[in-house]
Amino acid sequence: MSTPHRLHDASVRGFASDNYAGVHPQVLAALADANECHQVAYGEDDYTARLHQVMCGHFGEQAQTYPVFNGTGANVVALQSLTTRWEAIVCAESAHINADEGGAPETMAGLKLLTVPTPNGKLTPDLVDRQAWGFGDEHRAQPAVVSITQTTELGTRYTPDEIAALADHVHDLGMRLHLDGARISNAAAGLGLPLRAFTTDVGVDVLSFGGTKNGLLAAEAVVVLNPDAVTGVHYLRKTSMQLASKMRFFSAQLLALLDSDLWLRSASHANAMAQRLEAAVRAVPGVQVTQPVQANAVFAVLPSDVTQRLQKRFRFYTWDNHTGEVRWMCSFDTTEDDIDTFAAAIAEEMLV
Amino acid sequence: MSTPHRLHDASVRGFASDNYAGVHPQVLAALADANECHQVAYGEDDYTARLHQVMCGHFGEQAQTYPVFNGTGANVVALQSLTTRWEAIVCAESAHINADEGGAPETMAGLKLLTVPTPNGKLTPDLVDRQAWGFGDEHRAQPAVVSITQTTELGTRYTPDEIAALADHVHDLGMRLHLDGARISNAAAGLGLPLRAFTTDVGVDVLSFGGTKNGLLAAEAVVVLNPDAVTGVHYLRKTSMQLASKMRFFSAQLLALLDSDLWLRSASHANAMAQRLEAAVRAVPGVQVTQPVQANAVFAVLPSDVTQRLQKRFRFYTWDNHTGEVRWMCSFDTTEDDIDTFAAAIAEEMLV
Amino acid sequence: MSTPHRLHDASVRGFASDNYAGVHPQVLAALADANECHQVAYGEDDYTARLHQVMCGHFGEQAQTYPVFNGTGANVVALQSLTTRWEAIVCAESAHINADEGGAPETMAGLKLLTVPTPNGKLTPDLVDRQAWGFGDEHRAQPAVVSITQTTELGTRYTPDEIAALADHVHDLGMRLHLDGARISNAAAGLGLPLRAFTTDVGVDVLSFGGTKNGLLAAEAVVVLNPDAVTGVHYLRKTSMQLASKMRFFSAQLLALLDSDLWLRSASHANAMAQRLEAAVRAVPGVQVTQPVQANAVFAVLPSDVTQRLQKRFRFYTWDNHTGEVRWMCSFDTTEDDIDTFAAAIAEEMLV
Amino acid sequence: MSTPHRLHDASVRGFASDNYAGVHPQVLAALADANECHQVAYGEDDYTARLHQVMCGHFGEQAQTYPVFNGTGANVVALQSLTTRWEAIVCAESAHINADEGGAPETMAGLKLLTVPTPNGKLTPDLVDRQAWGFGDEHRAQPAVVSITQTTELGTRYTPDEIAALADHVHDLGMRLHLDGARISNAAAGLGLPLRAFTTDVGVDVLSFGGTKNGLLAAEAVVVLNPDAVTGVHYLRKTSMQLASKMRFFSAQLLALLDSDLWLRSASHANAMAQRLEAAVRAVPGVQVTQPVQANAVFAVLPSDVTQRLQKRFRFYTWDNHTGEVRWMCSFDTTEDDIDTFAAAIAEEMLV
Repeated sequence: MSTPHRLHDASVRGFASDNYAGVHPQVLAALADANECHQVAYGEDDYTARLHQVMCGHFGEQAQTYPVFNGTGANVVALQSLTTRWEAIVCAESAHINADEGGAPETMAGLKLLTVPTPNGKLTPDLVDRQAWGFGDEHRAQPAVVSITQTTELGTRYTPDEIAALADHVHDLGMRLHLDGARISNAAAGLGLPLRAFTTDVGVDVLSFGGTKNGLLAAEAVVVLNPDAVTGVHYLRKTSMQLASKMRFFSAQLLALLDSDLWLRSASHANAMAQRLEAAVRAVPGVQVTQPVQANAVFAVLPSDVTQRLQKRFRFYTWDNHTGEVRWMCSFDTTEDDIDTFAAAIAEEMLV
Repeated sequence: MSTPHRLHDASVRGFASDNYAGVHPQVLAALADANECHQVAYGEDDYTARLHQVMCGHFGEQAQTYPVFNGTGANVVALQSLTTRWEAIVCAESAHINADEGGAPETMAGLKLLTVPTPNGKLTPDLVDRQAWGFGDEHRAQPAVVSITQTTELGTRYTPDEIAALADHVHDLGMRLHLDGARISNAAAGLGLPLRAFTTDVGVDVLSFGGTKNGLLAAEAVVVLNPDAVTGVHYLRKTSMQLASKMRFFSAQLLALLDSDLWLRSASHANAMAQRLEAAVRAVPGVQVTQPVQANAVFAVLPSDVTQRLQKRFRFYTWDNHTGEVRWMCSFDTTEDDIDTFAAAIAEEMLV
Repeated sequence: MSTPHRLHDASVRGFASDNYAGVHPQVLAALADANECHQVAYGEDDYTARLHQVMCGHFGEQAQTYPVFNGTGANVVALQSLTTRWEAIVCAESAHINADEGGAPETMAGLKLLTVPTPNGKLTPDLVDRQAWGFGDEHRAQPAVVSITQTTELGTRYTPDEIAALADHVHDLGMRLHLDGARISNAAAGLGLPLRAFTTDVGVDVLSFGGTKNGLLAAEAVVVLNPDAVTGVHYLRKTSMQLASKMRFFSAQLLALLDSDLWLRSASHANAMAQRLEAAVRAVPGVQVTQPVQANAVFAVLPSDVTQRLQKRFRFYTWDNHTGEVRWMCSFDTTEDDIDTFAAAIAEEMLV
Repeated sequence: MSTPHRLHDASVRGFASDNYAGVHPQVLAALADANECHQVAYGEDDYTARLHQVMCGHFGEQAQTYPVFNGTGANVVALQSLTTRWEAIVCAESAHINADEGGAPETMAGLKLLTVPTPNGKLTPDLVDRQAWGFGDEHRAQPAVVSITQTTELGTRYTPDEIAALADHVHDLGMRLHLDGARISNAAAGLGLPLRAFTTDVGVDVLSFGGTKNGLLAAEAVVVLNPDAVTGVHYLRKTSMQLASKMRFFSAQLLALLDSDLWLRSASHANAMAQRLEAAVRAVPGVQVTQPVQANAVFAVLPSDVTQRLQKRFRFYTWDNHTGEVRWMCSFDTTEDDIDTFAAAIAEEMLV
């Protein structure tokens, strides 16, 4: 097959992020299937209608699905729909909304984040209580939402029971529970459970469903699991610049993922590759794995000179400059060969 | 070719919007070419690098290109980069930023729009002066930018001289000129001029370059033509939720359009179809074309019962409920047959 | 009485604005009365409690009163309490919120204003309809509030019937009615009616009550007339930086005005002075009064050289540079002598 | 003297806040002196002109003074003037801007706060470094300002050397230093130094000058110490709803404080009363003073039943429900008798 407009070296591999990967072939095929002829713009098309059905199959009949462009967009739309102008969101200090979105929640939506340090990226009812207080006091931004990430930014995973306990606590406080599911498929694959088992069934109110990191070109969705918890999602998607005109192509991507087992196959594979990497590096003296490997990420501490040499050969990020902790991400297209080559390189550089 | 996941009736045609059309086959092919293997996310990829070069070819060596998801995003990022927190934007009342973006500029970015009624969607120096005053007075949001649309929301077109006169006036006032180019290719095709002839060369400071309405899946770009006029575009793209992680696929779409003559061929075709439609309906007694057809839109006034019957057969919008004015849009995939069938239907319904 | 720290020339008089005047002596006395000893901050004090009662006397038992610092603050708090993030406010182009607040509603609160040109600063149901449409369409900021000003920025006045007709229309549309009452006392004085006759009794939902322009040092209030129409006023007052710590002194000012007939006496006097001025200038050939004098403002057109000479002797504003229209404001401390001297000066300069 | 409109029991005393106190008699007199006749509104008056001179006397000739209504307003205006839309502010977790302003910085101005826990309310260069990183990375809100409070919310005080070290560090990072001086006079009194010794002279860029907590009715000021650090303060004061129309009365309050030694006398007295209270309670077994008493606040831990009984007799706040820590504030009008009575009550309740 000719690829006359290919500009890149298709042999480069890396472990920097699951969004360094491309698009799963089934997803590209789905874009072609959705093409040709005219479809109503902005979501009144056949693909978006079908997506609503499929999402209800995963999350329950009450679920409402709003495709958006990216994860920051999904989170900012979701959090606005759950809050008034004077309300605030409790989250882990390491949460993507706090640490990696350039301040979008505050700057664009005026959302105050009340952050809590965590050892592993996971909130607990006790940690929530460190910020969930001052109800009724106008001098304090009113805590209205708790936002958790599954799997977390540290590659760890909540059990359904942990989320249920959080949801109960949050609801007892009169607050709502948002789940940033940028890697929700990796969580489901790791847990061996359907998506609803740790969302709808345990009390999550609104979900940011992630597709891009699991092999889509670009598509995420705000999925409202509890319609009573939100207002104005479709208006907020528009004001937040997240309403695609040719939405059929965004819905078609999500359908390619969710209307088959592609979401699960891809996520399971990425998880397995992370497990393989962990097993390999655990055998290397001097490499310390710092977080349980519960999804598609491996966090480890290496000597900084080793990291520097390795980064010349493979792209990956240093997570914490102080401790020398690094992050290695696996994706749907990571191969066993990729892992074995990389693990060998780690072992090799450790011996230098 | 089998299309197992096609959900829609591929024979449906309409004139509601150029974003009811799908994706040009060359663009889909380009997505496939850009796929496979790993590329750095967020814009440090080979496709985005190449796009910068191609855009400089079109707009001059000083041009800076920032791909984004959609037109509202492009406009809101561009306008923020041109303003402080206390500044305002002068635009036509019919401008997309004022009339069709759900209030995104105000709500998300705190931008005040100072609007001016226009007969044809076009601003002039005199019309600008209706709002460009009060400089230095803290009681008035400070006019800092004039935003024009090319082609306008009414299908009309500025000449290079008209834009030059606006740019000179705007700059004399110490303000900047933004051009919303959601349909900039249709303008260039209609004018028979290169893109820079009515942008860079006549003093436009920042451009929202439109691709989606001209056959892309979803891709637009903020193109800074005068780097002295802006600050922080790359930060603002992130805070505005417009930074694609797998950016190579957005740049690849824009490359497919701009690294060949596809942009011009598609736009010229859409314009020609609008001309064909205009010619056909001018021959129908009782149909009044209300704006000069200078791009891919035809505006006309019909009896409301005719409109109602026609809308049961073809999708299109009523533009003004008071006057009965309707809008018919042509796209890259509108065929001569589409036009002839539709024109015949109009003639037919006028006789009922 | 010695005034050792007086820095200003106490003989200067002007007609620029009713806020060039100082503080009514009764108000200063009330500040002294409220002083000494400790009172709970932020509104839990005896003066604020009493103010609530007094305001209920004027506006009905359901009224809720929130003192704030200034008029822009009152308006921005009120409008936020009436809207979600995606909603918009219909107002006259000449409305203070649109023309004189530096863009505060948009910039600070993300509020989109949908403006309508008016001949005399007054909206009508028909004028409202020019912007109150597109309900349910996410591409249009949702019209949720109509804001009117009484008396208007042009010195004109709504009758109770006119406001009732607006309120009925606004409510039929599912919207709410806000009244910017920066000069509400002048309206009541002019109408010869109690405050509630053209607010509570005819369907106004929320009122910005103005005190500063009627002889206070600085105090206004958001008065909620229909508690069902709002949410979160006390939170929004805090986030909008309008919550006074030593609130007893703001409530005491409003009490001085409203717990006696001071509000009415002061406003009636200012109105009478405007009438006296109008009568005097109508007798001067060449001076054209442009708006009915229904409160404490006179708008007139003068030859521009006359205006320039007069402005060297008396401070006042040119309202419209194009037409030469000027604005003369009277205040609670304007004297008959002030008027007669000024009118004589006008006549004199017209003869030069 | 008769006080016919006094509603409150003038014998009530408390230790809840320095803003439970009233207005210093010299300040009330100054309001009367500034009254009568007409003065230009919005700051072009003789009192504001004089205030500028007086502030330059305190803070240096380059200082620019912008009176505002309250402390939240001063902070939000100051921080906006120091930042673009994508920048962030590093502050202590206990900072007023983070903990006590209802989220105003985020909600109204879109400012992201990057908070650091501190033992005593004070930042250090090392603590700043916990958040001041990621420069140039669009995924991180760009740290642009460090905001410190003097004296802190915990009653502690920075030395000039400590502020100088912070300023040097902050400037080396390309950032700016803001000082929230809600109790700046208490700091100066405690240090025995002029105001500029720990502000202008050591590198503070912008100051929120506090007057209300030191005996004013309501007046604070944004004082720009380094004009190169800011843009648009006068526009931002207006958009932030902090521009008083009758500004002469706000400037006159600040003049009453600063054009004599009233600021220093009042603050010294309040500090001395806190020292007296500390001395008295240190003698009471079981009362633990938790922070050094360096201004007008005493923080202590008491048994919770003692606190409850005491709070029935005297108004004060529990600072930390978990530890039982309470806060006692002294003000310009706290008397030795107040202290002795209160200390006796504490001793008494501890014995119950």
